[in-house]
Amino acid sequence: MTANSRCRPRPPVLLRQDKDGIATLTLNRPERLNALSLELLRALLREFEAMAEDKSPRLVVLAANGEAFCAGHDLEEIRGTGNRRALKALFDECSKTMLAITRIPPPVIARVHGIATAAGCQLVAMCDLAVAAEEARFATSGVNLGLFCSTPMVALTRNLPRKQAMEMLLTGDFIDAETALRYGLVNRVVPAGDLDEAVAELAGKVAGKSPAAVAFGKRLFYRQIEAGIEEAYALAADTMAGNMMTEDARDGIDAFMEKRPAPEWKDR
Amino acid sequence: MTANSRCRPRPPVLLRQDKDGIATLTLNRPERLNALSLELLRALLREFEAMAEDKSPRLVVLAANGEAFCAGHDLEEIRGTGNRRALKALFDECSKTMLAITRIPPPVIARVHGIATAAGCQLVAMCDLAVAAEEARFATSGVNLGLFCSTPMVALTRNLPRKQAMEMLLTGDFIDAETALRYGLVNRVVPAGDLDEAVAELAGKVAGKSPAAVAFGKRLFYRQIEAGIEEAYALAADTMAGNMMTEDARDGIDAFMEKRPAPEWKDR
Amino acid sequence: MTANSRCRPRPPVLLRQDKDGIATLTLNRPERLNALSLELLRALLREFEAMAEDKSPRLVVLAANGEAFCAGHDLEEIRGTGNRRALKALFDECSKTMLAITRIPPPVIARVHGIATAAGCQLVAMCDLAVAAEEARFATSGVNLGLFCSTPMVALTRNLPRKQAMEMLLTGDFIDAETALRYGLVNRVVPAGDLDEAVAELAGKVAGKSPAAVAFGKRLFYRQIEAGIEEAYALAADTMAGNMMTEDARDGIDAFMEKRPAPEWKDR
Repeated sequence: MTANSRCRPRPPVLLRQDKDGIATLTLNRPERLNALSLELLRALLREFEAMAEDKSPRLVVLAANGEAFCAGHDLEEIRGTGNRRALKALFDECSKTMLAITRIPPPVIARVHGIATAAGCQLVAMCDLAVAAEEARFATSGVNLGLFCSTPMVALTRNLPRKQAMEMLLTGDFIDAETALRYGLVNRVVPAGDLDEAVAELAGKVAGKSPAAVAFGKRLFYRQIEAGIEEAYALAADTMAGNMMTEDARDGIDAFMEKRPAPEWKDR
Repeated sequence: MTANSRCRPRPPVLLRQDKDGIATLTLNRPERLNALSLELLRALLREFEAMAEDKSPRLVVLAANGEAFCAGHDLEEIRGTGNRRALKALFDECSKTMLAITRIPPPVIARVHGIATAAGCQLVAMCDLAVAAEEARFATSGVNLGLFCSTPMVALTRNLPRKQAMEMLLTGDFIDAETALRYGLVNRVVPAGDLDEAVAELAGKVAGKSPAAVAFGKRLFYRQIEAGIEEAYALAADTMAGNMMTEDARDGIDAFMEKRPAPEWKDR
Repeated sequence: MTANSRCRPRPPVLLRQDKDGIATLTLNRPERLNALSLELLRALLREFEAMAEDKSPRLVVLAANGEAFCAGHDLEEIRGTGNRRALKALFDECSKTMLAITRIPPPVIARVHGIATAAGCQLVAMCDLAVAAEEARFATSGVNLGLFCSTPMVALTRNLPRKQAMEMLLTGDFIDAETALRYGLVNRVVPAGDLDEAVAELAGKVAGKSPAAVAFGKRLFYRQIEAGIEEAYALAADTMAGNMMTEDARDGIDAFMEKRPAPEWKDR
């Protein structure tokens, strides 16, 4: 629970629970299908920015309360923003939160149930990994309202094949979880009743790796993917060398070569 | 039917039919398997350029007469082009037509039956969406003749996973429609008898969206996909803000929030 | 067999066999699961560099002796490299060998059996094509030892969808051959007993194409894939024009138009 929640009569829009190095952030506007109001976007960004500095959890799970994962932007808020400059600022702020997911050291897993539409679908696409319930459905439905899902497009086209992304964007139609898996939008699909267990299993596995190694890898991932292959390799060789200077890598390799179990990893 | 078809004894190489905001362009060289002669490429380009300005249809279907969708370049024409500079000019002109598909405001759906080979396969890849008959087959077969499908490669590698594109290019082998769907080259595969209905259904759905919103989205799609993610988001936020200034978006969102059906969209 | 193998008491780390224009390079450190020692990386690079100049085979098969395809870097060697600069140099040298695969004129097919892990998985990803035995398994397992598979990531993220690559990198888990096929890491999966035949069939097919056309195509493939689409088309039109000036293309097209079998291709 965020610190400032106590002085408000209504429940906080974002909850946080920490356990065993795993921070679970829960979107908590169930009555609005977790629409991403500026307040919610900023609450998310605050959490991410805190993780970028200093101590951070080993892994983040992004979950949601209520019947939907997230139905996108808060349309009332958008509709109430009268001029173009203010609208641009609003969408820029949303993008900043989205990008923060890829920039913090701990990996972020989306736990998706119900619907994930528009900026809610974007949120899934921006996470490092995603686990979905069988009944989950995904859409970039803005086109149905006359407002094309342009910012979600940025995330979608970096996860899906081109024509499949275009079809979602142009039709606004829902795809089911199996289709999302086939397209590359999510990593795993499980029955709704197994969702928490499947997320916990994946989260626990990743949280059990060396935080230093994971941070080296995640930082490189999004940098090298936008570079030409020659520059990407130069960045990667540098990352490998830096990673090898850590105690974790040296101890880990020694343990492996001596057929011992992996060591206790250092905190980052 | 193009304007200059009347003064010629033979049928025009490209037909056009407009209905309900949907323009159907039909390749009409069935006796040559719709080989893309310069005349046909230029007829296509003329249609696309007219759509880029002024009034344009809400959606374009690209279809073909006869037993094949398109068998690629006109080999006689290529073989009769003696020097390297003239060949380069010919391929540049083809690329210009191909790129025009991505630059006009209305989305373009390929309606594919029979074979789509070499530049014919490229044509499918360049369209925004594609619907194929079950018996359709796709190949980049130039390598079998000693002329590697280099220009089709540009489109193919932007639709398919890398190794699958390389296999098609190096072997020249056909893939069937189901494989094309799995690879991301097409959006839907239906029995040949249902092809027109499936195309009409998808075309009607997209043509029923706000032309302004669709134009904003399509323009952004191909720009942002080549940009780094940070620049892509900046472009997208700007597009969203511009889109929100249209009557369609404001009316569409109001209707949605008031649980009314979507409004009649304005013409672009 | 490499030239300098004669003066050593132990078997060479890399074997080469040439037959019908196909060069088979076989990793030969079976007792170390073909770990990529500097000696082995350099032996590979020497072979590739020789192919880049002068006469080269029409196709290369990259195979491996023993129970595994390749288990990645030689950990003892890495562990024994004490300072960061030397480590960077080692990884740079590995990258140079990996990139050479994409830069030599003949296509390279990976023949994968057993496990392909870390830099061994990278080796598969860097090849132009890959055929795997049903029992083959793939992993980027460095994260389990505290050393993230950063250089393999470069190759992996250029073959697989983003989230699937991230999952392999973060979990270190094995994927089976069918999953590798679905993700785009390999082209074909066959029963272990049919592996040689499947590789020979694909190798023979590609080796039967015009070496000049294949060289034009492969050179363009990796250049254009990193360029914007407009520049990519300009490069491709130039490649097409250059390719058309070869005897192979002219003879090949003539034969095709006259319904004769393809001609004997010239050596490159």
